[in-house]
Amino acid sequence: MSIETVVKSPTKTVVIGPDRPFVIIGERINPTGRKKLAAEMLAGDFSRVRNDAIAQVQAGAQILDVNAGLGVANPHEIEPEVMKEAIRVVQDVVDVPISIDSSVVPALKAGLEVAQGKPIVNSVTGEEERMEAVFPLVAEYGAVVIAISNDESGISYDPDVRFAVAKRIVERAEAYGIPREDVLVDPLVMPAGAVQGAGKQVFDIVRRVREELGCNTVCGASNVSFGLPNRKAVNAYFVSMLIAAGMPCAITNPLEPAILEAIRAADMLMGHDENCTNWILLQRQKAAAEGGESAEARPARRRRSRRA
Amino acid sequence: MSIETVVKSPTKTVVIGPDRPFVIIGERINPTGRKKLAAEMLAGDFSRVRNDAIAQVQAGAQILDVNAGLGVANPHEIEPEVMKEAIRVVQDVVDVPISIDSSVVPALKAGLEVAQGKPIVNSVTGEEERMEAVFPLVAEYGAVVIAISNDESGISYDPDVRFAVAKRIVERAEAYGIPREDVLVDPLVMPAGAVQGAGKQVFDIVRRVREELGCNTVCGASNVSFGLPNRKAVNAYFVSMLIAAGMPCAITNPLEPAILEAIRAADMLMGHDENCTNWILLQRQKAAAEGGESAEARPARRRRSRRA
Repeated sequence: MSIETVVKSPTKTVVIGPDRPFVIIGERINPTGRKKLAAEMLAGDFSRVRNDAIAQVQAGAQILDVNAGLGVANPHEIEPEVMKEAIRVVQDVVDVPISIDSSVVPALKAGLEVAQGKPIVNSVTGEEERMEAVFPLVAEYGAVVIAISNDESGISYDPDVRFAVAKRIVERAEAYGIPREDVLVDPLVMPAGAVQGAGKQVFDIVRRVREELGCNTVCGASNVSFGLPNRKAVNAYFVSMLIAAGMPCAITNPLEPAILEAIRAADMLMGHDENCTNWILLQRQKAAAEGGESAEARPARRRRSRRA
Repeated sequence: MSIETVVKSPTKTVVIGPDRPFVIIGERINPTGRKKLAAEMLAGDFSRVRNDAIAQVQAGAQILDVNAGLGVANPHEIEPEVMKEAIRVVQDVVDVPISIDSSVVPALKAGLEVAQGKPIVNSVTGEEERMEAVFPLVAEYGAVVIAISNDESGISYDPDVRFAVAKRIVERAEAYGIPREDVLVDPLVMPAGAVQGAGKQVFDIVRRVREELGCNTVCGASNVSFGLPNRKAVNAYFVSMLIAAGMPCAITNPLEPAILEAIRAADMLMGHDENCTNWILLQRQKAAAEGGESAEARPARRRRSRRA
C-alpha cells in the first residue's frame, strides 16, 4: 500500500510517499535559536531568509519550512505579519511548496492566506484546543497538516501511547473532512541519550502509522542526537534508518553534507534513484568542491603532484 | 519473536539476534584478492593472519571469518591443511569463535576438526550436491551454517526466488537435524548500480526470513556498492539500514572506520548500547587518534591555539 501526500507551489507538485524519493523539508528558516535571524526578521530585514531559501533549494530541499517564532512577548500580534512577509519573500525567490511552522494559530492562518498552492500546516497536536483551532483552517484551505503525537498529558516516553495519540488526531482530522493522506504524523523523536532505543521506537511507529492508520510520517530528525558526541553522524545514520523504515520525508538541513549524503545513499539503496544518478552527481559535486578548495589552499606544484 | 543463534570459542559465547548488539564477523583473513597474503599462506607464513586476527578483534570483531582460498590448481589437496593452520594460528592469539569459510568441502571438514567451541560453517547453497556434502558435517559437529540463497540455476535477481531458495535450504537443514536458529540465511546482496532497489530487496528478505522462516540473517555488505563512487559511504549507510531491518550480524571489516561508526550508531539507535557507552567510547577513541596524529603533524604553538 503506497500512501501519497501531495503538496504544491504555484507551479510545482511534490508527492510524498514511501515508494518515492525522500523529500527534504528545509528547516533553516527558523529564528528559534538563531538570535541574529530573529532580530533581523523583527526589524523587517528578510535578506537572510531569502538567502536561506535559495541555498536550501539549491542543495536539494523540495519544500521549505518557514517559522516566525521570534520569542516576543506578544506573538499573536507580531508573528502573523512576520510570517506573511517571510513566506512572501521565500515565494519571491524560489518555487517550492511552503510548510507554515508556528505554535501561534493566527500565524498559521496568516501563512495560509499568503502561501500559494497547497502548503503544509506545521503543526497540530492531540490537544483538544489545538485541534479545534487548527483543523477548520486546514480543511478550509485544503492544506496538509503535520500531526504531532502529544496531547494535554505531554509527550509520552511510551511509543504505544504516542501511536494512540496519533490515531486520535488522524480520526479527528477525518471528522473535519481532512483525508488521511493529508495528515503527516510526527511520531516525536526522543533523544537516544535519554531514551534507550529511541530510534527503534520511531521505526516501529512509522510502520504502524503506515499500516494501521494509512498515513505518511515526518519528523525533525536531529533531536535524536541531543547531548551525544558527533551529532552529525548520529543524525545522518538515523535518517538512513528512517528511510529504510519507510519514512518518506523529514524536516532537516540539506546544507549539512552528512545528512544530504545519507539521504542520497538511502534513496539509492531503496531503489528511488534511477541509474544511481543523484548519488553519482553528489559525489561529483563533492569532488569538484574539494578540488576547488584545494586549488585555493595549496601551491600549484603540490596540486599537480596530487593529480598525477 | 527473537531468534538467537549461539556460537562459541573455547571460553566465549557470542549470541546473535535482532534484539542484541550487532555482531561483526571480521572478513579480513581472506586471501581472495589479497595476492601477498595468498603467497605468504601458501609458503607457510601466517604472520599476517595473526596480525589481522588481533587487529580485527581489537577493533570490535566478535567472530573471525577464516578463508583459505589460495587460487591453487589443486585446492582439495592444499586448502584443508592451510585452513587448519590458519585456524590454529588465529585461535593461538585470540579467543573468539571461528567462521570456517570455503567452497571446498574438505577444507570445511578440516576446519571443523580444529576449530574449538561452536563455529560457523561458511557456507552451503541450495545446490543439491552442496547440501548433501555440507549438512552432515554441520550436524555432526553441531555447528552453525550460513545458507546462501542461490542454487543450481544461479543467483536470481528476483528476491522472491532467493527467499524460496532460502526456505528450501532451511527445510533441508532441519531434515538433517540442524535447528533453524543454527542457520544464518544470506539473502545475497546485489550491486545497487546494477539492480535498482538492491538494498530494499535485502531489507524485505531479512524481514521475511525472520518472520516466516524463524532464522537469523547475515551478509557480506560490500557487494552493494560495487562499481559506485564512494563505496565506503554506501557500505556504511547500507549496514545501518540492515540493522534497522533487523539483520543481527554481517561479515565485514571492523578496521574500516565508517563501517564501525555506522554499526555503533545503529546499535545505539536500536537500543542495543546501554547508556550509549560504545558510541561515546568510539568518539573518544577517534578524538584521541586525531589528537595523536596532529601532535605529530603540527607545530606546538598551533596545537595550543587549537585547544584554546
